Amino acid sequence: MQAISNQNVVVLKEEGVTLPKGFKAGGMHCGIKKENLDLGYIISETPATAAGVYTTNVFQAAPLVVTQESIAKEYKIQAVLVNSGNANSCTGEQGIKDATAMQKAFASQLGISEHLVAVTSTGVIGELLPMKKIHSGIKQILNKENAAEENFMQAILTTDTSVKQIAVQIQIDGKTVSIGGAAKGSGMIHPNMATMLGFITTDANIAYEDLHFALKDVTNQSFNMITVDGDTSTNDMVLVLANGLAENNQLTKNHPDWDLFVKGLKMVSEELAKKIARDGEGATKLIEVVVDGAKTQEEASIVAKSIISSSLVKTAIFGTDANWGRIVTAIGYSGVPVQPNAVKVAIGPYQVFENGLPCPFDEAEVKYYLEQETIQIYVELNQGNQSVTAWGCDLTYDYVKINGSYRT
Amino acid sequence: MQAISNQNVVVLKEEGVTLPKGFKAGGMHCGIKKENLDLGYIISETPATAAGVYTTNVFQAAPLVVTQESIAKEYKIQAVLVNSGNANSCTGEQGIKDATAMQKAFASQLGISEHLVAVTSTGVIGELLPMKKIHSGIKQILNKENAAEENFMQAILTTDTSVKQIAVQIQIDGKTVSIGGAAKGSGMIHPNMATMLGFITTDANIAYEDLHFALKDVTNQSFNMITVDGDTSTNDMVLVLANGLAENNQLTKNHPDWDLFVKGLKMVSEELAKKIARDGEGATKLIEVVVDGAKTQEEASIVAKSIISSSLVKTAIFGTDANWGRIVTAIGYSGVPVQPNAVKVAIGPYQVFENGLPCPFDEAEVKYYLEQETIQIYVELNQGNQSVTAWGCDLTYDYVKINGSYRT
Repeated sequence: MQAISNQNVVVLKEEGVTLPKGFKAGGMHCGIKKENLDLGYIISETPATAAGVYTTNVFQAAPLVVTQESIAKEYKIQAVLVNSGNANSCTGEQGIKDATAMQKAFASQLGISEHLVAVTSTGVIGELLPMKKIHSGIKQILNKENAAEENFMQAILTTDTSVKQIAVQIQIDGKTVSIGGAAKGSGMIHPNMATMLGFITTDANIAYEDLHFALKDVTNQSFNMITVDGDTSTNDMVLVLANGLAENNQLTKNHPDWDLFVKGLKMVSEELAKKIARDGEGATKLIEVVVDGAKTQEEASIVAKSIISSSLVKTAIFGTDANWGRIVTAIGYSGVPVQPNAVKVAIGPYQVFENGLPCPFDEAEVKYYLEQETIQIYVELNQGNQSVTAWGCDLTYDYVKINGSYRT
Repeated sequence: MQAISNQNVVVLKEEGVTLPKGFKAGGMHCGIKKENLDLGYIISETPATAAGVYTTNVFQAAPLVVTQESIAKEYKIQAVLVNSGNANSCTGEQGIKDATAMQKAFASQLGISEHLVAVTSTGVIGELLPMKKIHSGIKQILNKENAAEENFMQAILTTDTSVKQIAVQIQIDGKTVSIGGAAKGSGMIHPNMATMLGFITTDANIAYEDLHFALKDVTNQSFNMITVDGDTSTNDMVLVLANGLAENNQLTKNHPDWDLFVKGLKMVSEELAKKIARDGEGATKLIEVVVDGAKTQEEASIVAKSIISSSLVKTAIFGTDANWGRIVTAIGYSGVPVQPNAVKVAIGPYQVFENGLPCPFDEAEVKYYLEQETIQIYVELNQGNQSVTAWGCDLTYDYVKINGSYRT
């Protein structure tokens, strides 16, 4: 009997950022929010190679500026400090001073260089951080009672209804390499208008350039596919830390297991992205839009995002209404020059549009399908061989409720 | 005492498409909808010079194809026939045949050439028109009891909550020239995803090229400013008919009162556009976004539409929450390279953001302002001297309710 090679197997784990060797995490309530946890950390035993992707919003929040500058020093981060409840955004020079002070205080608590600490914030825009509470929190945060990954995941949330984590393991050079992730964010109508934070840890041994390349690549296929291009909040950020403790030979694009590592990283990113989309504010369903047969990836993305951003599609799915006309309309105004008669649309397994005409389908059957928690919309453009997947959520009464009274 | 010149005065009238000389309108229930009126007409005594602007959606509905071809014959239209309840969109060749049959039947009823009849439809996509009901309706529609402008305005509605009309009068060459309009449409999240129909009549004497030029110009500043560029339904159309019965000297761009005519046409278009925006599905407020100090009109439009399309801005205004951070965020992700520290934002008379920082303001006062029915957001980019105004509405529970169950 032949042994099954596990070389290309990515094993999914119900764990998160502390599965990779040498990482710990924790969180506490320091008083920014009324009750919930609001200050969290991830720490690596040793300085980890670090790469990030950041919001493209021209109003970039203070902690993102500070963290990018710090990473640029030697592409290493050993600790991440996150607060929720206040975004430290639109806070001018004082905001930069506060983010720097947060970084400095945590570095001093850990006895490491300041630039090895990444800081980030999420919450209300335009209010200064309550620094007294944060300083007091930083003094206590390393206490034993706060040391729990669950605490970290709770501490980064804002309007999220659930924590989001995922981890995978792969074998590289005979070593077990783990990749873990945690995220916060909500799949809004324009998803990235809400702050999205992603934290990925790995014990893989990998150089900065390759890590950054892989992160950008998988982000484009995961976090950015729950996003309308350019629609980013002032605080969006995805960070990856790789501390090398798995002791594999350094990963580069020429390593035989490079693709496997990227596959693992992509799985973590995609799962977190889907969890964010599913946890849309007030959402009851995850919507997955697959656009196939496009001339280019870009055209496929534009069409997919046009559909996933359509409030009319989103409300129809909330109402379990097989309103394929709204899907066709969203394809038609996307700006991509599709051939009307070549386009096919399916809702789940049900073909609903072909040859410029609706297909006969059983309303009751499709309605039953639309009552599921995950809804797939499949579009075939028949213009090429490029394909993308995008994710979003339905639009519900509760979305309006949550967002009509967020600040007050 | 000097006589006040009325040469540049545009007099607003609480009337509509039948104010201009020689136009009549009517409507009836022919059975496409369960109860409400669903078939309407406008007729001019004489063939009128006609121009139109049409959806840019690649899935263009059948009646738009037929109407465009008809207008192209001699740029004249004498009658318009509109049905609501069924959009005759995504209906293939049969849809074209049905639109042509509708046109032919009404022309025969009126005893005029087919190509002098414009047809248009609004309602559910992908179902064939119930031609038996429509033919039976066309036979009765000219009966006296249907002849009422109010009937026409009712017959073109779908999810609208109110009829929309406006008219103006101006003096040209000593003659009173009237311009009247009626519209249907709802200011959605992406406003033009719902069908918008505009019908403008005038007794002005004007040549086709100039009429078309003026219509395109004012549409860009009115109907298209409740629109996210390219987000158009399959049926959107604005038609203008000019029958010349006012007997002014033919208007051209060189006529001394050209600007006055354009001003009147713009006032009609802008008022209709604002009524559409205000009648957004489930909307409680009209939002007016003024972007000033832009380098170009295009950049000003992009920023204005980014704000007016933001579901987070719209829900905040519904919730009377002075959440200026969402406005700033929408400016920041619009794609226009603004200078963060140069941007100023005001909500009504209240300055809320300047120099990259929030301005102190009285929450209660701004909350009181946000309880009004018309909310103005003013943005100064400080990069140039171009300015635009865009309109939209708030996002409410009722939006979700209406659109979650439209088709069923």
